[in-house]
Amino acid sequence: MIKTLAMPSFTKPTLVLDEDRARRNIGRMAARAGRFGVRFRPHFKTHQSREIGRIFREFGVEAITVSSVDMASYFAADGWRDVLIAFPVNILEAGEIARLASRCRLGILVESPQALPVLARRGASPLDVWIKVNVGANRAGADWDDKLLLAAIGREASRRPGLRLRGLLTHNGRTYEARTFEALRRVHADAMTKMRRARDAMAAAGFPGLEISVGDTPSSSRLEDFAGADEIRPGNFVLNDVTQVELGSCGEADVAAAVACPVVSTHPSRNEAVIFGGAIHLSKEDFRSDRDGRIFGRVCRPKGAGWGPILKGTAVKALSQEHGIVKSTAGEIKRMKAGDILFVLPVHSCLTVNLWENYVALDGRKVQTIRSRTS
Amino acid sequence: MIKTLAMPSFTKPTLVLDEDRARRNIGRMAARAGRFGVRFRPHFKTHQSREIGRIFREFGVEAITVSSVDMASYFAADGWRDVLIAFPVNILEAGEIARLASRCRLGILVESPQALPVLARRGASPLDVWIKVNVGANRAGADWDDKLLLAAIGREASRRPGLRLRGLLTHNGRTYEARTFEALRRVHADAMTKMRRARDAMAAAGFPGLEISVGDTPSSSRLEDFAGADEIRPGNFVLNDVTQVELGSCGEADVAAAVACPVVSTHPSRNEAVIFGGAIHLSKEDFRSDRDGRIFGRVCRPKGAGWGPILKGTAVKALSQEHGIVKSTAGEIKRMKAGDILFVLPVHSCLTVNLWENYVALDGRKVQTIRSRTS
Repeated sequence: MIKTLAMPSFTKPTLVLDEDRARRNIGRMAARAGRFGVRFRPHFKTHQSREIGRIFREFGVEAITVSSVDMASYFAADGWRDVLIAFPVNILEAGEIARLASRCRLGILVESPQALPVLARRGASPLDVWIKVNVGANRAGADWDDKLLLAAIGREASRRPGLRLRGLLTHNGRTYEARTFEALRRVHADAMTKMRRARDAMAAAGFPGLEISVGDTPSSSRLEDFAGADEIRPGNFVLNDVTQVELGSCGEADVAAAVACPVVSTHPSRNEAVIFGGAIHLSKEDFRSDRDGRIFGRVCRPKGAGWGPILKGTAVKALSQEHGIVKSTAGEIKRMKAGDILFVLPVHSCLTVNLWENYVALDGRKVQTIRSRTS
Repeated sequence: MIKTLAMPSFTKPTLVLDEDRARRNIGRMAARAGRFGVRFRPHFKTHQSREIGRIFREFGVEAITVSSVDMASYFAADGWRDVLIAFPVNILEAGEIARLASRCRLGILVESPQALPVLARRGASPLDVWIKVNVGANRAGADWDDKLLLAAIGREASRRPGLRLRGLLTHNGRTYEARTFEALRRVHADAMTKMRRARDAMAAAGFPGLEISVGDTPSSSRLEDFAGADEIRPGNFVLNDVTQVELGSCGEADVAAAVACPVVSTHPSRNEAVIFGGAIHLSKEDFRSDRDGRIFGRVCRPKGAGWGPILKGTAVKALSQEHGIVKSTAGEIKRMKAGDILFVLPVHSCLTVNLWENYVALDGRKVQTIRSRTS
């Protein structure tokens, strides 16, 4: 029997989820992690949904990454028992962290020794301490070769009851600047080398057996060499987006979320259409495309129960609060009219999803996000 | 008796409202509109809050602007009886528009004649039809000198029962590119001239007595010449933001909303601090400052019940999903430590507010936004 899906009818901007694609993306990444022999600890800040989180369980995932205490609480309430908050710990939330640690195995991230006494004082249940290591992105973290600082954190974590020094963690954001496979391979290999050296230095300083946690989506999707790593934490791959397509991390048929947007007018004189779909539906994240300059999304037409291929020569070129400006070819603009639905693939799916209380799946079912909680 | 306010204690990113400043901003703009002799129809897409909306009533405001049908419903439910949806009408929502028109005087915006038959068919209650006019921003609208198109819309609106041709409307977005007072004056005068000419052309074509609706925040805050206009629709001024400060539309003491963000670490070697406060708290909107390049917010320290002056030489220079990177002077960074609260003034308050279910007022009271509605 052929399963036929009636496409939901959209009347205003709607975040749409292609669940089959998301499941395929998860299965593929789980298989990669298995092949590398590392723990798969996916970052849930991308999908922010209990229901999508449950799909990961089908693939044996037991440990997850989140980016805030709130998000940790949300997923712990859905039965996740091994949760790492991969954000430099905010000591003002020490009380909530202590409460949460009584409900699940909780990991926190530090980049200096100062936070640890505050956390140790509060907690009855032990916390896993991960040291945030900077391997060159210079956003946060202790520099990978700052042996004194790393050892100082190690000492503080080891001497405090209630803390368990667990490992070294990095987010190698430089992979997002790698526009060729060779550049990606190089920045990843560089990060892996630095992390192994930091671990060796810590072992020499009296802190042996530390784990290494790495794994952004570009490297986890394309590379094979994770020797030395104990776990990978990609997040974006579950939905992917224009950035990952442009970087070559995935094909366009791997993008699992799009925003359905009504066309409200066309301006053939400048090859533009105005869509109801702006910064509050997509986020203001941009991508600098060599071909098309600064873009805010790629555009597809409806196809079957979902959306079709990316329209050539077409992009969202400007965003206001509720408007988007689609620039396209004369031919495409001619075929568009007010009342049509276009699907916009987001530049950065994490930020897009964050704007919504729910996705609508291709069968019309609502899939809630963390925003649907009443505050 | 001196009123003392205990500053609410913040433990995680929080949108903070200085209600006294918002009230002062509203009073000042209401007085300006009175002086110009125009209707004050403020845009409510900035604050998105019933409670802040009610402050406008203290100043006699009766007509409002919104940017979506959802927002129109939200404010109509709070008793607003004259609502203009200043977004090119989305015919897929014709049913909801018709229902809403039975509850309040509703204005819609069109930029072509095609939408009108669909709307006229649906509605039992009359709709005010405003024609969106493009005076040079080239985002949307019928070109101001396209007499044929303007007249075609006029004819269609006039011959359909249930539609009332009311006026010509523009959003002169070019004022946001004016970096000097003289440039602002020039682009505003140009827009006013074009609007008056479009109205004259419509009168000559058999559509006399049309109203003119204009009024972005930069021009409404600083200029005096609104001759020919019937109403102004500024929105941003109620909260203001870094963009308005940089453009000279307001002083920094007129910014009425900020995001309180905990410092999670400092990096004195690069004069940076990492704050818990990222794109999901501030939005990814940027401002290109002549002095500081691309910035995502300005930074203040707590002061009294609110926040103090903007820290010199300091800005949010990068945003990830939850992190912000504050770049500052060596002296300021030295005085910051993990656990401190910094107040970040947003680049674009409309997009920042859109991310939150509520503000926290300086007395600790929660002020809800449209997002607090359960969907």
